[in-house]
Amino acid sequence: MSLKEWLFGKPIPNDEAEEEKIGPLEGIPVLGLDALASPAYGPEAALTVLLVLGASGSRYIGPIIAIIAVLLLIVQFSYRQTIAAYPDGGGSYSVARANLGRKPALLAAAALALDYVLNVAVAISAGVGALVSAIPGLFHHMLPLCLVLLGLITLVNLRGIRTAGKLFMAPTYLFVACLGMTFLVGLVKVVSSGGHPVPVEPPPAIPAGTATASLWLLMRAFASGCTAMTGVEAVSNGVPIFRQPRVRGAQRTLASIVGVLVVLLAGVALLCHAYGIGATPPGQAGFQSVLSQLVGAVAGRGVFYYVTSASILVVLCLSANTSFADFPRLCRMLALDGYLPVSFAHAGSRLVYSTGIIILSLLAGALLVAFRGVTDHLIPLFAVGAFLAFTVSQFGMVAHWRRSQEPRAKHYLMVNAVGGTATGLTLAVVAVSKFSEGAWMTFVFVPLAVLLFHTTRRHHEKVEEAIETERPMRVVQAAAPVVVVPIKRLDLVTEKGLQFALTISPDVQAVQVRAQPEECEELRACWKRRVEAPIRAAGLPVPELVVLRSTYRQVVDPLLGYIHKLAAAHPDRFIAVLVPELIEHRWYHYLLHSHTATVLKMMLLFRGGPQVVVISAPWFLRERKPPFTRALRSPGTSLQASAARKPASSST
Amino acid sequence: MSLKEWLFGKPIPNDEAEEEKIGPLEGIPVLGLDALASPAYGPEAALTVLLVLGASGSRYIGPIIAIIAVLLLIVQFSYRQTIAAYPDGGGSYSVARANLGRKPALLAAAALALDYVLNVAVAISAGVGALVSAIPGLFHHMLPLCLVLLGLITLVNLRGIRTAGKLFMAPTYLFVACLGMTFLVGLVKVVSSGGHPVPVEPPPAIPAGTATASLWLLMRAFASGCTAMTGVEAVSNGVPIFRQPRVRGAQRTLASIVGVLVVLLAGVALLCHAYGIGATPPGQAGFQSVLSQLVGAVAGRGVFYYVTSASILVVLCLSANTSFADFPRLCRMLALDGYLPVSFAHAGSRLVYSTGIIILSLLAGALLVAFRGVTDHLIPLFAVGAFLAFTVSQFGMVAHWRRSQEPRAKHYLMVNAVGGTATGLTLAVVAVSKFSEGAWMTFVFVPLAVLLFHTTRRHHEKVEEAIETERPMRVVQAAAPVVVVPIKRLDLVTEKGLQFALTISPDVQAVQVRAQPEECEELRACWKRRVEAPIRAAGLPVPELVVLRSTYRQVVDPLLGYIHKLAAAHPDRFIAVLVPELIEHRWYHYLLHSHTATVLKMMLLFRGGPQVVVISAPWFLRERKPPFTRALRSPGTSLQASAARKPASSST
Repeated sequence: MSLKEWLFGKPIPNDEAEEEKIGPLEGIPVLGLDALASPAYGPEAALTVLLVLGASGSRYIGPIIAIIAVLLLIVQFSYRQTIAAYPDGGGSYSVARANLGRKPALLAAAALALDYVLNVAVAISAGVGALVSAIPGLFHHMLPLCLVLLGLITLVNLRGIRTAGKLFMAPTYLFVACLGMTFLVGLVKVVSSGGHPVPVEPPPAIPAGTATASLWLLMRAFASGCTAMTGVEAVSNGVPIFRQPRVRGAQRTLASIVGVLVVLLAGVALLCHAYGIGATPPGQAGFQSVLSQLVGAVAGRGVFYYVTSASILVVLCLSANTSFADFPRLCRMLALDGYLPVSFAHAGSRLVYSTGIIILSLLAGALLVAFRGVTDHLIPLFAVGAFLAFTVSQFGMVAHWRRSQEPRAKHYLMVNAVGGTATGLTLAVVAVSKFSEGAWMTFVFVPLAVLLFHTTRRHHEKVEEAIETERPMRVVQAAAPVVVVPIKRLDLVTEKGLQFALTISPDVQAVQVRAQPEECEELRACWKRRVEAPIRAAGLPVPELVVLRSTYRQVVDPLLGYIHKLAAAHPDRFIAVLVPELIEHRWYHYLLHSHTATVLKMMLLFRGGPQVVVISAPWFLRERKPPFTRALRSPGTSLQASAARKPASSST
Repeated sequence: MSLKEWLFGKPIPNDEAEEEKIGPLEGIPVLGLDALASPAYGPEAALTVLLVLGASGSRYIGPIIAIIAVLLLIVQFSYRQTIAAYPDGGGSYSVARANLGRKPALLAAAALALDYVLNVAVAISAGVGALVSAIPGLFHHMLPLCLVLLGLITLVNLRGIRTAGKLFMAPTYLFVACLGMTFLVGLVKVVSSGGHPVPVEPPPAIPAGTATASLWLLMRAFASGCTAMTGVEAVSNGVPIFRQPRVRGAQRTLASIVGVLVVLLAGVALLCHAYGIGATPPGQAGFQSVLSQLVGAVAGRGVFYYVTSASILVVLCLSANTSFADFPRLCRMLALDGYLPVSFAHAGSRLVYSTGIIILSLLAGALLVAFRGVTDHLIPLFAVGAFLAFTVSQFGMVAHWRRSQEPRAKHYLMVNAVGGTATGLTLAVVAVSKFSEGAWMTFVFVPLAVLLFHTTRRHHEKVEEAIETERPMRVVQAAAPVVVVPIKRLDLVTEKGLQFALTISPDVQAVQVRAQPEECEELRACWKRRVEAPIRAAGLPVPELVVLRSTYRQVVDPLLGYIHKLAAAHPDRFIAVLVPELIEHRWYHYLLHSHTATVLKMMLLFRGGPQVVVISAPWFLRERKPPFTRALRSPGTSLQASAARKPASSST
């Protein structure tokens, strides 16, 4: 087993493609982890904004979560319809492209791409946040921990989807079970204590308030809390990875995700209020996540606390996986439409779109480094992208139903219109209230991404237009090419190059570049004796030796000049430049080479002009027995055919 | 003027090479700066060790400097003889190679190389030390300052030696003048005050001693102070860059350098003792260099102080230049002997050995980063390399004189034997007393470097042996190659590839790799109509279309398999794989490509086997008018010649 196979798994043949599909049970972890994990950072983000209110802050978390829950249900109904209407993947991009045109589609794509990248960064940093809450000693290693986790997740995803689905099921359901248990026990304690439960492990005291509640503050808290809604669109985007029946499977998955999510959010809000739990200042020593405080308060810091913390950590980190499933798929769609480089559309040997995975990992890593792995710094950027994509997608559906012939189209249209309006209003609130804290970056990144998509597409179209043709091939009846062989000296490498050159053309020139051309007398004599004589004896056309002067000790420029002159002198022939190359059998031996051959080949390709063709003739260091021993023994018909060719005079 | 010319200067033709030579006036800055600048860190290094003695430490600096001055004079006499005996460059490496054999020569080379790298790092960090002594606010930016200076010096050196010589003359002589003036004024004040001068600007108080003077401590102080001797060998190594008469010029340069150096060192020792100046703890805020304290004490912090500090800064930084002149020259000698990659022996377009300069810069940069730009941390590594090279070189000269027929050979032998013994003893003292502080690294690096030299040479010899030949060329009378053209679809890029293929062989195969080969019916029909028909009409041999199945969506592996089969079927012919390539006219457009062509070409070269030759046929996006319009109009004799070739049957 090679290292590559050990890391990335065995290649998967094409015909096993269908078996990689998943059902709802696996769909919840693969597409829903982003949404399900958000109770771990959404309420916390809102509480962090409310921190300035002191202990009275937790009073407002209930109403904020309630509004978010209502929004979630609206969005769920909207997306049910999208899934049914677009069983081949109804991501915001494809819906907008089909119904609203190119520009809104690219806007949605850019917003989604940003959202996916941020989801990876936020999920991983929140996961590490859970870890340092449980083990405060790790506080000073947050960023390295984030990057290690990112690397692991990237590796798992490069292995393929099904592996990912299986790997993520157990921790997801453990996480839901642990939090469910905590809320149940907490609820019992709250009720039995008449609403004033005594925490087993008291949460850190909330510092005294420094401000009073204002509409602006509550808006900002709501906007931060809205990050709990991100990830819900993942299911509609990922319909194609479901087993048949796709639509029902996807809809059931979406409903389960939203149902569990609402229950978890409600539980967090209720218990925070009952136990008086607030956020701790983020990015500072002594940080403890809200969920950690909450589990501690309900159940103490025993075995259950550590099991729950571990499941939160794992689930948060893995929730980044939603993006790893969807971002490459989005990029693939963009690439197929010409908006991104083609490599995003190539499935790797494990049936995943490796380029997209790697790019996502690099972008998320850059964000983590830039914001030093602190979740709270990333939050303002996060919600805008998601809600922009939501809104474009909903209004795309509205346009879809308007043209639809279905009997209940009007009803469907209303649902999507309500959804679009709700998410649009939320988008406005989030953008305004978070603008100066970082949401402005969205307004820089998204247009830049759209511009990138446009430019790429335009370039693809230009190339396409230039190279496409429907006419029959134009047959050029040119003579054999003039073959130019740059040589340093007469060794076995050069010999092999000349051997090949003789088989393709009667016009071969060996070219030597020298600082002092006068010094070549020895070479000329040697050339006569060792090259001209045997070739003449074999009855083949004799190659010419050309010596070029190099004034500045360069090889490439004089050679290029000579080749341009040659091309001008033979306008109706190809000029084939043959570069003899020594092939070592260890890559590091190339460090010892001067790389003139590589540079020469590149320059010839880029600056040689339309008549020039570049030939690499390898000579293997391990080439014990030279090839063509048979040819040497039996110079048959081929010899005559080869010798019969006459050099075409350049004046014709 | 291009950016490259603006940065590196215009290319220098070969015949101007002689004019780049220098005389003694320029030789002192170019080859002597390393030695001349050492009063700025040598005495300081010794005083830093004496720090634990408190105020009584400066009592010992006089005797230590006196021993060093005696050593310097001994070394100067030794090297005078080396210069006379080796006018083509008597560096330790060439002397040892000529007289002691391969292994001692490589030992000397490794030691010298290490010494040069350290000299760059120490000089730059000491220069920055002078800067932060004058402007303490810069203390926290030492490392970035070091790296910026390193970059500037590298750039200057890439422009060439003469420019360097001129650029460095003024600051060198200003530095000598300023320090000379300081010592003169200081001496007058010391004498006129009866040995107890009052400092204008009192130096920082020396902290109380924590130890008493021991032989071990004094040995360590002496070992540190010996860094003041490094750089003296530079002249003997650099003889070839002197104008004629070389030997006299080089000897006069060496004598001047050592003379000035001894005076400067004596001045520093005397004034430190008279004014009670000690070192300040290195790498800590409040650091002030010894020279800065000294100039402040003698002249106060006025204009003169700042001019002197500036000249110290500039000279220290430029003293790194000695290494930039000699390290690449040493590497070139090693490369010519096969111990380093050939690129070290290529003079760039400005007549300097660019590879050596760049490698030196990278190594010194790595040292600066590793030791955070603090001079004192680098000192223990520094002296060992220099004294190792001194010693090997002196004993090499001893061997030289033993075989010499010269009348005064015995006298010369004695001088070199005394020199070698003195530096050898010093080497032992330095190695032992600094071993645990960092000198041990020398005992790791030097053997590693020697091993690297050996391995490289062995590889070069192996390759040489494999490719060298004196026999006449073996003429292979093979048929025209089988040309394989991998195609994605029929566009203008592919067309051009096929056009060329038809000119070199009657056996052309277009190969398409598909995941579902059944889907190719359309392509086959298209191929018949658009390729086969027109080629048949032109009377040329018709190429074959081959479709390969790709189970794992890869292109390269199935193609390689097919080519290997083809090679086995035609053991007496070349297999030419022709890769049609689209050439964009902006490099960044390649980011949009899938690079299959590049990967394919590489794999074919490395794994194709001895019969395979790789052809790149470029098609230019800007290729407005296709070439070969003349050929289309006049299908002359060449057509018949080309058509006359028959495919050779593979069974012959």
